[in-house]
Parts: sequence; structure tokens; C-alpha cells
Amino acid sequence: MASKEQIKNLKYVFEPRSIALFGASPTPNKVSNVILKTLIEGGFPGKLYPINPKYQEIVGLKCYPDLNTIKKQIDCAIIATPAATVPEILKQCAVWKVRGVVLITAGFSEAGEEGKKLEDEIRDICNKNNISLIGPNCLGVHNPATRIDSIFLPIYKLQRPKPGNIAFITQSGAIGSTIVDLAAYNGIGISKFVSYGNAAVIDEVDLLEYLENDPKTKTIVAYIEGAKNGRRLYEAMKRINKKKPIIALKAGKFARSGEAAKSHTGNIAGSYLAYKAAFKQAKVVEADSIEDLFDFMKIFSQPMPKGNRVAIVTNGGGMGVLTADAVELNELQFANFSEETKVGLKKILPDFGNVGNPLDLIAEADADKYASALDFFMQDDNVDVILVIALLQTPPMDERVLNVLIRVSDERKKPIAVISLGGEYTENYQRHLNMYDVPSYSSPNAAVRTMKKLIEYANYRRGL
Amino acid sequence: MASKEQIKNLKYVFEPRSIALFGASPTPNKVSNVILKTLIEGGFPGKLYPINPKYQEIVGLKCYPDLNTIKKQIDCAIIATPAATVPEILKQCAVWKVRGVVLITAGFSEAGEEGKKLEDEIRDICNKNNISLIGPNCLGVHNPATRIDSIFLPIYKLQRPKPGNIAFITQSGAIGSTIVDLAAYNGIGISKFVSYGNAAVIDEVDLLEYLENDPKTKTIVAYIEGAKNGRRLYEAMKRINKKKPIIALKAGKFARSGEAAKSHTGNIAGSYLAYKAAFKQAKVVEADSIEDLFDFMKIFSQPMPKGNRVAIVTNGGGMGVLTADAVELNELQFANFSEETKVGLKKILPDFGNVGNPLDLIAEADADKYASALDFFMQDDNVDVILVIALLQTPPMDERVLNVLIRVSDERKKPIAVISLGGEYTENYQRHLNMYDVPSYSSPNAAVRTMKKLIEYANYRRGL
Repeated sequence: MASKEQIKNLKYVFEPRSIALFGASPTPNKVSNVILKTLIEGGFPGKLYPINPKYQEIVGLKCYPDLNTIKKQIDCAIIATPAATVPEILKQCAVWKVRGVVLITAGFSEAGEEGKKLEDEIRDICNKNNISLIGPNCLGVHNPATRIDSIFLPIYKLQRPKPGNIAFITQSGAIGSTIVDLAAYNGIGISKFVSYGNAAVIDEVDLLEYLENDPKTKTIVAYIEGAKNGRRLYEAMKRINKKKPIIALKAGKFARSGEAAKSHTGNIAGSYLAYKAAFKQAKVVEADSIEDLFDFMKIFSQPMPKGNRVAIVTNGGGMGVLTADAVELNELQFANFSEETKVGLKKILPDFGNVGNPLDLIAEADADKYASALDFFMQDDNVDVILVIALLQTPPMDERVLNVLIRVSDERKKPIAVISLGGEYTENYQRHLNMYDVPSYSSPNAAVRTMKKLIEYANYRRGL
Repeated sequence: MASKEQIKNLKYVFEPRSIALFGASPTPNKVSNVILKTLIEGGFPGKLYPINPKYQEIVGLKCYPDLNTIKKQIDCAIIATPAATVPEILKQCAVWKVRGVVLITAGFSEAGEEGKKLEDEIRDICNKNNISLIGPNCLGVHNPATRIDSIFLPIYKLQRPKPGNIAFITQSGAIGSTIVDLAAYNGIGISKFVSYGNAAVIDEVDLLEYLENDPKTKTIVAYIEGAKNGRRLYEAMKRINKKKPIIALKAGKFARSGEAAKSHTGNIAGSYLAYKAAFKQAKVVEADSIEDLFDFMKIFSQPMPKGNRVAIVTNGGGMGVLTADAVELNELQFANFSEETKVGLKKILPDFGNVGNPLDLIAEADADKYASALDFFMQDDNVDVILVIALLQTPPMDERVLNVLIRVSDERKKPIAVISLGGEYTENYQRHLNMYDVPSYSSPNAAVRTMKKLIEYANYRRGL
């Protein structure tokens, strides 16, 4: 648990004007080399100070032996030196009033007694000097808007997302980095990414409190193995979730997997039942899996639905049937279309077509038919949410259908989610939709499960 | 239900030496035009006869007015003409002893009484003349080995898979085509694809019986909305599943979705509980969703496991924790490594590393460490199945790790499944693994659920 001052000082981590990189190295693929190259390639616009007494210059930048030689106040230090050297570096940071620190290095509390002592020591230094430290044993921070990026995985292997409004905090670097990669690949924007590892100073609750007041963040996603203080986490989640939806995945749910979590970041996983109850009471959106997490985070770009009456439109009968199965399984309601809607829809169907829900436009449907159907759904007071199955492989489907979906989503009358499934051609179009904040899913189940979460959250917010 | 002779005649549908395409058209994007172009682009090696009295030539091929003009026995007719014209065409086929027919056209029993009569009429003609007819109201057939392909979705939108040993039969064209597209994109081979639509002549059981004796097919995947005869389906599945694993997805599970299924292919969806019970008793691998179907079909390339004791290796702690959660949730056992394995593994870990299960090789792991760990697992009699989490974004991971995984899988000692997650770089490597029959998954849950299905099926086969 950090002080208010330390939480405030997180701005030096997320929006640094200058960064010192301790342990900078010219050796390709070394952690600190990847970080330096990523900052440069990612276009970090501030000043960069590689620090390593062994070198004069690294990848074209002047290299310094220490902060004393730079003689300037620097906003943020990224540290990737061996664990034993860290206390001395932090003391230097204290002297030069560095307020933000990202400590990448492993070998602290997760590595046994010795490491635990070292971790206590760095906590003391940070708390006494109002240093806001992320880590240790982590990937650190990425903010696509300010281009700070301490993820030590090269861009050619792990893509970086565009600026967006979803913040993602994670105890696990691996989970975090894969979500970043997936988000980037799928066209989803991120406001802040934090892999906080052992949480020696700044913990998950401190981060939640910072994000609570971060104007760039609208949705908060959290991967948690074991919180330092369960009660405090619950209170914070309960408060913040009333303003911004929180999606949480608890890992280490069982005895055995909890052990694995402990040796991972040195935190006790704690009783899953207690977490589950806390999530439920705080109305936090619980994700059961990493795919849930990724599915759910996209949907909150949509307006809040007024109810649970679903309208489905499809150009493939089988996908309509599977989606109807998912609607029943998830106990949502099928919308009963108004007479006006029925009359209107009848006109766009082939002679032998029925106005059903799912509405099957059959494989001859083009963008115009989708536009008509969606406009009827949007106007019909009996419809609360819309699921659009758009199989893009049929001959009449083309890029125009994307424009229809984006236009309808932009009107922000009712939430929509799009279901399409296929290979390269389809995936490109799905990314295109995500880029315009139209949530796109590869399966009926995923889309319906996700829509249900949005409906539940909307009900909660309406009841407040 | 077709005759034995008709089932035998399916070979003319799957392995035709010559194809007549009724309703061939020069108009781009028309169904029959796409089919013709696909057959040409796909490199169909036999003779192609476009048939349409209106044209002399279509896309460079001589066009005929009818079969009488061709004056040759042709193996297979693909028909894409209006429903009312079909009986006359089938009579022509009977005269010229065409034994295989793929009827694409819609507007039969799914479209009401009139269509139902027409469907009865074509059934009569086929049964009297031993014609093996797929359809109507379907995408028809694709066999990547012989290159017959009646899927009327262009290759640039819907990729075609390589030849393989998974057969896929589906009542829904849309579901079928998306699975074909996904399979192709993900490097998974297919032995036969059949979208059988209304099943007027050849139904799902006839297809199962053909595939039972098809040497190219090792795994059978079925998407079913409503079978013509539930009892007959059950008996066939029970018999065939003893030799070749059958994976089945039943759609139209509820009253409402069942209605949607009926208007889709004119078949009654029937009680889902009856299907579920039948699958369970026949030990058919039931898929709950389209993603299950796709996940499960890949795993049967692996050898049958001897038990349910799982070994997990990872280079990302969080993914290890999530996988351990999934192992507990699915009630599989964690393998207790032998002393020999423990001693050996200790040597490849960093100083502060523990020999746990999940075995965390941490982010510094390279291909050599994976090779060592996997060799120990393969030799350890306490290990039945292996889950390999390989986060490919870390600096030490490179293409060599793929070679290790392919080598270990090729030894066919124990089943393995690989879990990796990420963007473009990772997805390319996942496809690479699938191409070499190493099943690759994007989530711990999917991999563990799938491995459980293999274990259950192996238990069943062992008990026979």
C-alpha cells in the first residue's frame, strides 16, 4: 500500500518526459537492450538516458555512468540491473528526486528469504522518498499515448496497441504481454498497461485508485493471482466499479495452482471463494479465462442496454441456430419484433423467407439488407441489444457491410456485437471492426456470454 | 436413408474423374460461376463440362446445352439451376448413368409444401436409379486430395485446406464453410468435407457409413441440427466411434433455436436431451460450441494417452497458473515426477527455480531447455500427457523451439498439446505447428478441455 503522494507520482511512470535506463546494454536480445530499442523504435518523444559505467554510447545514444553525471532531475527510471545493485540505485534516485521507477529485475520475494529482505529494503527507500515504484519481477509499463514502454519483448514478436481507453493491470508479465499483443493485433486500444509483478511498493489497489481518476481510462481490466490485502481490494473495486467497469480474472483458484502462483510472484493466492464472493458483491465483471478477459474488455465500448431482449440477424442459418442456442443457454430473451418491424423486414427477405428472430437474410444478403435490418432493430422499442452474424465469405458481402456496422455502432443507440468466423480474409475484416470500436467475435457463445455481462453491468448501474 | 449401392456411389462424388456443372454461368459472383472458377483455380485434374444452353463457352471452357450433347458417361453432376428444373436434369443424369450428384439449389423442403413435393420427386428419381445425391440446399462437397469443390465461396474469401485425415460433415453450409476456412488458415488438413443440407437422399448416417470405410479418414466431425432418424444415427455412431473418433455438435438445442433449425434445413431438431444421452452412450465426443469442435478435431492426431496424469512446462508463470487452474477444474491429475526426472530438471533451471508442475522455465528459456524438459517428461512413467506452454514473444524463443515440438510429437510416445497466445508473430508459429500435426491452442482452458476429451476417448477404446 503506497501513500497518496506515491499514487500521485505514478504520473511520472505513465507520462514521463525523461527516462533513465539503468543497466542499458548494447547486446542484442538482452532485456535492457530490447527496452532501449523499443523506446527508440516506438518513438518515445522525451529524453532518454542509458546508464551503464561500462559504455560511452549505446545504440547511438550517449551513455552515462550514473545519475550524478547527468545532473538533471529525471521523471522515470527503468531498472534492469542485478537485484543486489538495486538499493544503491534507488538511493541515487532519491537524491536526484526521480519520482517514478519501473523495476524489471527478478530475484526478490519470489526467490526466497534473501530476496524478501532485499524487497523490504527497496520498499523502505521508496516509501521514505515518495518514490512510486512498479515491480520488481515484472514487465513494467506501457502507455501507447506517451510511448513509455518497458516491455522487454521486441516489437517484431509482440505488437503494441494503439492508444485507447482500456487499462490493463496484471500481476503476471506473460499474461499481460500476450493480452497487449492480442489487443494490438486485433485493433483494440489501451490507455495504460501495467505488469506490476511482486508489487513491492505500488500494488493493484494503488493502481486501481490511480486509474479511477485517469480521464483516459474508461474500462479497467485486472489479472490477479493474490492481492496483498483482500479487504482493501474489495473496497476499492466496489467503489470504482460504480464509475468504470472493472473486469477481473483471478488465477490460482485451487490449492495446487495457488502454489504455482506463490512461487511466481511471491504472493499468496488466497481463497478463490472469497474472491468470487467479493467480485459478485462489488458487481465486478468476473472473467473465467483469458479468452473471457479479452472478449469482455471489448464490449464496454458500446452504450448501456436498457434490457435483455436480443435481436439476431444472420446470413448463415446454422450460425443463427447456434446463436439462438447461446441466447437460451445464457437466459437472455428473444425480442418480439413490433408489427412495423415485421412488415418492414418482410420486404427485404426473399419470397420464401420468414421474419424470425434469428432473422435469416440467407447467403444472398448484401450490405443494403443488413443496413435495413439494423435500422429496423434500432427503431424497434422491443429490441434492447443486437447480435449481427456477418459471414463475410459469401459473394455479396463486401467492405460496405463494415461501413454499415460502424455507422450503426457510432449512432450509439443500442449495443451491438458482431459474430463472424473464418480465415485470413475474415480476420482482417474483424480487426477492421474492432479498430472502429465495433466489438467483433469469432463465436456465438463468446458474443452472447459477453453481451450478457454488459446487460448485467448496465442493470447494476441503472440500479445505483 | 440411401441404399448400399448409393452409399458406394458416393465415391463418384468424392473422387470424380469428370464433372458436369448444370447452370454454369459467365456472370462473376453467381454461384455456378464461383464453382466453375474454383474448380479451375483449385486445379481439378479431371474433365469439366459446363452445361447451359445459353452459352457456347464459359471462362475458356466449351459449354454444352445438355448431357445428350456430351454423349459420355460423367462421374458427377453439380447442379445449380432453379429448383423446378431439377427433376428433368436428374432424369437426364439417370439416362447417362451419372452416379454422383451435388445439388446446390435451395427452395425445397425448407421452403414449404411445394418444395417438399419437389424434394420427394427428386428422391424417387435418385433411389430408382442408384444416384447418390448430396443436398439440396447446401454447399456440397470438397475433397482437397481429388480437388472436387462445390463450395460456392471464392478462394480469396474462403481458403481451402490441405489434404488431411479429418472428415467434416455438416447440415449447415455456413458452419461448414467457416470450419473449412479456419482449418485452412490454421494449417489443418481435411479428408472430406460435406455440407449435406436437406439430406433428401444421402443423409448424415449414409455419410458416416461411407467414412467408416474411407482409408483417408481417421477422425469424423459432425455438425447436426436434426437427424432424419435418431435411432439409426445412434447405432451408426456407436459402431463407428469404436474405430474412428466421432466429434459431434448438436445445434438447435432449445425450443426456439430448434424452430430456427427447422426453417433452415427443413429438419426437426428433436430433443437435445435425447441427443446428449445418445452421444454419451455411444461415447461420441460432444462439442458444446463451434470453438470446441475446432479445438477437439486437432487433438486426435496425437497418440492415445495411458492415463490422466498431466505434466506442464511453461516459460511464463501466469500461463502456468491458469493452466493449473484448468487442470483442476477439469479434474485431471498433476503428474508427480520421478526422482530421476526431478534431478534432471533441477539442472536446467536457474538457481532459484523450483522443480514444480507446472515446471516454470521462466522467460530465459530457449529451445534447448524445452527439449530437455520434454525428453524427461517423455521418459517418465509417471507422466501420461504433456501440455507445453510456449510464449513465443520472449527474446530466447525462436524457430528452433518449433522443431523441438515437432520432433517430440513425431516420436508419438505421449500426446502433447501446445499453448501459446499472441498476435501475428505467434499466430504464424501456431499455424506452423498445426501443419506438422502438433495441436496448438490459444488458451489454457481450450487445451486442457481438449486433452480431457482425448483421455476420455482413450479410456473408452482401452476398455473395448
